[in-house]
Amino acid sequence: MPPPGSSPGIETHELSARTSTDAPIRVTCADYCPEQMQIEQVTNLNNFLDQHRPAWSMVRWIQIEGLSQMEAIRAFAEKYQLHPLAIEDMLIASHQPKLEDYPGSDEMPGRLFIVGRMVKMDGDMLSSEQVSLFLGRSTLLSFQDSTSSAFESIYHRIELPGSRLRTHDVSFLLHALIDAIVDSYFPALESYAECLEELDDELRIHPAPNSLQRIHVVKRNLVLLRRAIWPMRELISQLQRDKHECLSETTLTYFRDLYDHCAQIIDLLETYREIAAALTETYMAVVSNRMNEIMKVLTVFMTIFGPLSFLAGVFGMNMPIPGNEWAGTFPVFWIVCIAVVCAMLVLFRRRGWL
Amino acid sequence: MPPPGSSPGIETHELSARTSTDAPIRVTCADYCPEQMQIEQVTNLNNFLDQHRPAWSMVRWIQIEGLSQMEAIRAFAEKYQLHPLAIEDMLIASHQPKLEDYPGSDEMPGRLFIVGRMVKMDGDMLSSEQVSLFLGRSTLLSFQDSTSSAFESIYHRIELPGSRLRTHDVSFLLHALIDAIVDSYFPALESYAECLEELDDELRIHPAPNSLQRIHVVKRNLVLLRRAIWPMRELISQLQRDKHECLSETTLTYFRDLYDHCAQIIDLLETYREIAAALTETYMAVVSNRMNEIMKVLTVFMTIFGPLSFLAGVFGMNMPIPGNEWAGTFPVFWIVCIAVVCAMLVLFRRRGWL
Amino acid sequence: MPPPGSSPGIETHELSARTSTDAPIRVTCADYCPEQMQIEQVTNLNNFLDQHRPAWSMVRWIQIEGLSQMEAIRAFAEKYQLHPLAIEDMLIASHQPKLEDYPGSDEMPGRLFIVGRMVKMDGDMLSSEQVSLFLGRSTLLSFQDSTSSAFESIYHRIELPGSRLRTHDVSFLLHALIDAIVDSYFPALESYAECLEELDDELRIHPAPNSLQRIHVVKRNLVLLRRAIWPMRELISQLQRDKHECLSETTLTYFRDLYDHCAQIIDLLETYREIAAALTETYMAVVSNRMNEIMKVLTVFMTIFGPLSFLAGVFGMNMPIPGNEWAGTFPVFWIVCIAVVCAMLVLFRRRGWL
Amino acid sequence: MPPPGSSPGIETHELSARTSTDAPIRVTCADYCPEQMQIEQVTNLNNFLDQHRPAWSMVRWIQIEGLSQMEAIRAFAEKYQLHPLAIEDMLIASHQPKLEDYPGSDEMPGRLFIVGRMVKMDGDMLSSEQVSLFLGRSTLLSFQDSTSSAFESIYHRIELPGSRLRTHDVSFLLHALIDAIVDSYFPALESYAECLEELDDELRIHPAPNSLQRIHVVKRNLVLLRRAIWPMRELISQLQRDKHECLSETTLTYFRDLYDHCAQIIDLLETYREIAAALTETYMAVVSNRMNEIMKVLTVFMTIFGPLSFLAGVFGMNMPIPGNEWAGTFPVFWIVCIAVVCAMLVLFRRRGWL
Amino acid sequence: MPPPGSSPGIETHELSARTSTDAPIRVTCADYCPEQMQIEQVTNLNNFLDQHRPAWSMVRWIQIEGLSQMEAIRAFAEKYQLHPLAIEDMLIASHQPKLEDYPGSDEMPGRLFIVGRMVKMDGDMLSSEQVSLFLGRSTLLSFQDSTSSAFESIYHRIELPGSRLRTHDVSFLLHALIDAIVDSYFPALESYAECLEELDDELRIHPAPNSLQRIHVVKRNLVLLRRAIWPMRELISQLQRDKHECLSETTLTYFRDLYDHCAQIIDLLETYREIAAALTETYMAVVSNRMNEIMKVLTVFMTIFGPLSFLAGVFGMNMPIPGNEWAGTFPVFWIVCIAVVCAMLVLFRRRGWL
Repeated sequence: MPPPGSSPGIETHELSARTSTDAPIRVTCADYCPEQMQIEQVTNLNNFLDQHRPAWSMVRWIQIEGLSQMEAIRAFAEKYQLHPLAIEDMLIASHQPKLEDYPGSDEMPGRLFIVGRMVKMDGDMLSSEQVSLFLGRSTLLSFQDSTSSAFESIYHRIELPGSRLRTHDVSFLLHALIDAIVDSYFPALESYAECLEELDDELRIHPAPNSLQRIHVVKRNLVLLRRAIWPMRELISQLQRDKHECLSETTLTYFRDLYDHCAQIIDLLETYREIAAALTETYMAVVSNRMNEIMKVLTVFMTIFGPLSFLAGVFGMNMPIPGNEWAGTFPVFWIVCIAVVCAMLVLFRRRGWL
Repeated sequence: MPPPGSSPGIETHELSARTSTDAPIRVTCADYCPEQMQIEQVTNLNNFLDQHRPAWSMVRWIQIEGLSQMEAIRAFAEKYQLHPLAIEDMLIASHQPKLEDYPGSDEMPGRLFIVGRMVKMDGDMLSSEQVSLFLGRSTLLSFQDSTSSAFESIYHRIELPGSRLRTHDVSFLLHALIDAIVDSYFPALESYAECLEELDDELRIHPAPNSLQRIHVVKRNLVLLRRAIWPMRELISQLQRDKHECLSETTLTYFRDLYDHCAQIIDLLETYREIAAALTETYMAVVSNRMNEIMKVLTVFMTIFGPLSFLAGVFGMNMPIPGNEWAGTFPVFWIVCIAVVCAMLVLFRRRGWL
Repeated sequence: MPPPGSSPGIETHELSARTSTDAPIRVTCADYCPEQMQIEQVTNLNNFLDQHRPAWSMVRWIQIEGLSQMEAIRAFAEKYQLHPLAIEDMLIASHQPKLEDYPGSDEMPGRLFIVGRMVKMDGDMLSSEQVSLFLGRSTLLSFQDSTSSAFESIYHRIELPGSRLRTHDVSFLLHALIDAIVDSYFPALESYAECLEELDDELRIHPAPNSLQRIHVVKRNLVLLRRAIWPMRELISQLQRDKHECLSETTLTYFRDLYDHCAQIIDLLETYREIAAALTETYMAVVSNRMNEIMKVLTVFMTIFGPLSFLAGVFGMNMPIPGNEWAGTFPVFWIVCIAVVCAMLVLFRRRGWL
Repeated sequence: MPPPGSSPGIETHELSARTSTDAPIRVTCADYCPEQMQIEQVTNLNNFLDQHRPAWSMVRWIQIEGLSQMEAIRAFAEKYQLHPLAIEDMLIASHQPKLEDYPGSDEMPGRLFIVGRMVKMDGDMLSSEQVSLFLGRSTLLSFQDSTSSAFESIYHRIELPGSRLRTHDVSFLLHALIDAIVDSYFPALESYAECLEELDDELRIHPAPNSLQRIHVVKRNLVLLRRAIWPMRELISQLQRDKHECLSETTLTYFRDLYDHCAQIIDLLETYREIAAALTETYMAVVSNRMNEIMKVLTVFMTIFGPLSFLAGVFGMNMPIPGNEWAGTFPVFWIVCIAVVCAMLVLFRRRGWL
Repeated sequence: MPPPGSSPGIETHELSARTSTDAPIRVTCADYCPEQMQIEQVTNLNNFLDQHRPAWSMVRWIQIEGLSQMEAIRAFAEKYQLHPLAIEDMLIASHQPKLEDYPGSDEMPGRLFIVGRMVKMDGDMLSSEQVSLFLGRSTLLSFQDSTSSAFESIYHRIELPGSRLRTHDVSFLLHALIDAIVDSYFPALESYAECLEELDDELRIHPAPNSLQRIHVVKRNLVLLRRAIWPMRELISQLQRDKHECLSETTLTYFRDLYDHCAQIIDLLETYREIAAALTETYMAVVSNRMNEIMKVLTVFMTIFGPLSFLAGVFGMNMPIPGNEWAGTFPVFWIVCIAVVCAMLVLFRRRGWL
């Protein structure tokens, strides 16, 4: 975070002053029209930015993976005249999904700036990554911090002649990217569904001391997912409502479908949260039942030895006790003791205490 | 679910690539007008789709039960030009109720696509099934995954000359189908009402250890029902509000009645959820009361034997104790013991501890 | 409830097929204008319906008490052309308050259909009854299932020359009826207020085991009242908003007053619900305090006899113990014991454990 | 409350039939314009009402304290033609703040009817009083049930030449009255803030058994205040929104300030309610900690005497025990006992149980 | 607070009557345009207010730190004709963020009055300070109660030629100040995030008795922050919506960015509150687990000595007991005792009670 009171946004010329790291950066450029397509791995960035796109290209998608080299970011920011506030949001990369429509001035065309949040499960760890999209009239820029294979299938769809993606405009490509981002939530959800089921079984059979801890972790992650998907849904509904010039009518129909996906994810999240809440309750009930069970049996145990010890004490008194001379008193004493124990056990069981 | 990043919707030509199963498929076609009607079990699907409908038919309803044979789905999708997104929603069949109005192009007429969710109780098990409806100007297609008898009474109403259904247009048939779907919730609700009443009695008389578990199951199912009926109500209110060209004015009046049914179901669901919540509380109170009762009585028991054992111990001491030689000490000791016990019992009872 | 899939509403000709019972039905007809009025107990229904109303009558109110004789219902339904959906809602009579404005066709005038829910306390039992009202331009029909004296004071007001009711139109009569329905909630509320106060006293002095049960019953009934009064308020606000042709401007002012009454009832209901919730909390605290008190005193008791029994045991050991031969050891032993008990009691009291 | 079904509102002629009491009634009349002012204690009400106001008077405020003499109420109701519903609301005086704009007929000018609720702390008791205001074009009537000094400072401001109140119209006087009513909440709030702080200290040092009871009382009173201030805020926002003809533009700016005061009060109320909720939690935690502490120490105590008593019992057995003849066994026994006790205390302390 | 019923607002002439203190007051004046700038520490206030601003100055910002000298406040209030209500809000300084647009009369230009609330962490103590801003067409006044370094970086940005702040109008300066106020929440949030993490670790390892207290403090402070940031967000959204004449189009874009910051802060606050709630739950679970553990082990301990003491008592009885003469009985007795203990320990462990 920049310190309080500092200037908002990052101007293009300030970019050079920021520290770059050696982390690799991968730039992929895809050009396509219904008849032709070309996907290129950019190696020399300056050459690439100096050239014009091929005349046949109706849609150009430049995917930048890696935000570590400030000179590269600056080159894109200058070429495509990105807004300083958008550059800041893109680089700090801890934003929830949002949509900004920066107004264009005369020579600077207005661009739709969209922040999405992709989700990945590494074992039990939930990680999320910001994807920043800039939509122009025929160009889409996408920025991510790390390389990932999430958009690979989209390249396949571009390569396929006659596919719906290939035959539509750049807003359909935007839909494809956001669709991939939204779909990335489903595997995470499935993994938590399994986790909750496991916990449910575990609680019933043998509640471990860390069960509650694990339920809490699941709950917290579900909340994180919910925090990200709600503004995502809001964003999609805003895209439908505001009817930006770059969005074609056909794409809007598809965004409605995407809106439904988000609603479905939210629905699942709510269901899982309620299940997690019910699990917490069950855990509490199981633990308290167990404790009560133990205390009950032990107390019964102690109660039985109260009268017995008293009886033994009585016959240990140093006063003349009738029968204390008779040799049969000892077995009789034991019979009485066993009878008392049996009577008490029967009584306890009858009242449901055992 | 399709993998993330894959193309949205299912194109007609993609249907053939999906795996079909041997599960049977039943197609029923009903044509009617006020004067005439005909209900036919379709055996040869291709012949049927090639023929035109009879000239007198004002409303045609084709009911497809079974979604396993992709060639049949494809035939309907091509003949009635269903939207790829609608086909996907229909086949995946895990959607909550929703309403889509896919715009028609020149030669492809726009169709209203409605997803409903029917509910069935098999013993204690709650199952639900998606019903997908496509409404055209005089045709209604309904798709379900399995054969069911839920719509049988609608055929009877079609067969009855002069019935309100027979004399109205296709939107009234839509109302009849959605009405049947909504009415399917009432038997489930009644079964849960009974279940809650049973649990209430059980809790009061003899709370079983799995009572809480059973309350949780009821709660979870009530939540599932609520998840399905809320969008159902939303859908009906949307139908009333948006005034689609296929919906006649008379039908809208009837949809208002249907909206009331949904409101009634939601009202009942809320009541049952509150009862279930109160039952959980009661269970907790009953269990804790029981436990406290046991602990209290047992502790009283142990308390009584404390002084008695002490007394016996005193007279067992090996020091000169006055009266230890007298033969009457033993009965006197017992009298004292009984007096102590009685005094303590009276004291405990007076303080309300027994 | 009719089975799922059956035809919505009850057509006039279907009424005859429904089973009638012998339960009596009472029909009262009141005609009035500022100058004249006449209240008649109808004995011959057919004659009555065939005759025209007197020419001077500006407002006619027909009150039907008893919904058991289908032929009578059919006669009214035909004469006043009631909508099939309204007839169903009237006969099933388990609806929450609602308002329907069924559109009239050429020869069938549109009527406002209003469902109200009246409340009655029989001892501790809360019962409610549906009142169905049909408002025309100068006629009001009211249907109830049982005879009740709730509307008697309205007849008195009709009989009083110059009263506000007598000098206004039929919509003012509607207001009077709904006012009576809303006012029927106040006695029930008062009875629950008293009940909560009693419970509050009881809890503080001697919490009975069924106190919680009784609080739950009050809570549940408050929820039932709330379920009925919320749509009632909604209904009244809808009447004000929609400005139906049958409602005069003056009446609307009075409906605003009625709306305030509903708001007041809701306010009271919320207050009582919070009091009930606080009572539950108090009950829990009182019970747990009591339990803790008992456990504490008993445990202190047991703790005291631990050292005493040990001491007695020591002097019962069969080893040479100094002083065991001296006759004064016994009184000394007792003095030591009493000293130990006193010391412990002082210690416990000082730490606040007694 | 009038019985259900009775006529709404109280007509002017019905007032005489209501029972008057001997309780005194005080009528004060203030007339003022920027240049002149006159405050008069009215003794002969009929004379006063018959006279016209002085020609120079731009604002007249008549304050009626005491609602017990029906003839006086009737005189005002007739002179200022108050609406029957407003008279009822004024006399029953148990209403939450509200605003009514009764429409005027030709000869009866429309008046704004405002109900406010003033708050007073008598020691720990919270009491509230309804203030009913009728606003005309240049006249303000205020009715209260008892005499109070709350509006005294307003008379001072009227007496002060050049004060903002004196130089503005009647709506500014309305603002001054409502401002005084709203400001009456602050002392009550402060008293509860202190009360909560005291309770907080008390809970930490020595939680009394009635602490919970006292927290409940504070909570309930905070709820009562909240019930009154919410509609007050609503009322003020309605005054701003509806722009009644009697309200000048300048006054509206001041009402915005008043709205802020209400918002501030609500904010404080919410803060106090959360503090009260946290106190309840703290009380529960403190009580349960205390109980646990007691049980723990006592149980440790008892545990120590278990082995000791056993040891003493062993050496009391009537069998040949080695060392039982040696005189040194007794001191050795005591040493062993003390060693066992020490070992156990160390163990308990090390595990954190003491 | 002024007493109830007193005049609203503080008139300029009333200021002199208020008590001034000796607390220092610092006035800084910054004038700038794209080409030139001048920052001046004002020492002679009267001289300063009498002079006109330099002709080149496009934006003038006067920062007043210290509200203790009433004559200085009066001088500003008269020169810039501040509204009495605004002066009151500024001096009482306990307001939540708000926005007022006081209408200007002919010679008195309308000014936007904005109240912000800045936040500071002093160790664990959270303090907040009101910042009052008056925005004119080219002048901005800012009032604070104490001197702080929060706005220092803004002076640096003014000094920097060509900075975005320098080249824009006064509304951009307003944005810079509100931005600094909003950014002041982030360090506080971070400090609470760390605090919660520490508490989380502490709870797991060794829950201190005051842990709950500390969680409560964090919770309460989070609520305070939330109380201040919500109206802040509302204020910013109002600025965007109402399009006041003093706000340029470019600034509005930047305010949208600021709105996002607020949303982010609220998002974090909600996350932390949920974490704090989970911590409370964890604390409760840990404490109760610990208690149960202790009680369990101790009860097991006592249970073992029940049978042993009984056995010892039996062999202490004064009746003929077989084997009591044999010298090997004593070791056999001990073997039996050890066997009983071992058997019980095994049993307990097997049932999971140890």
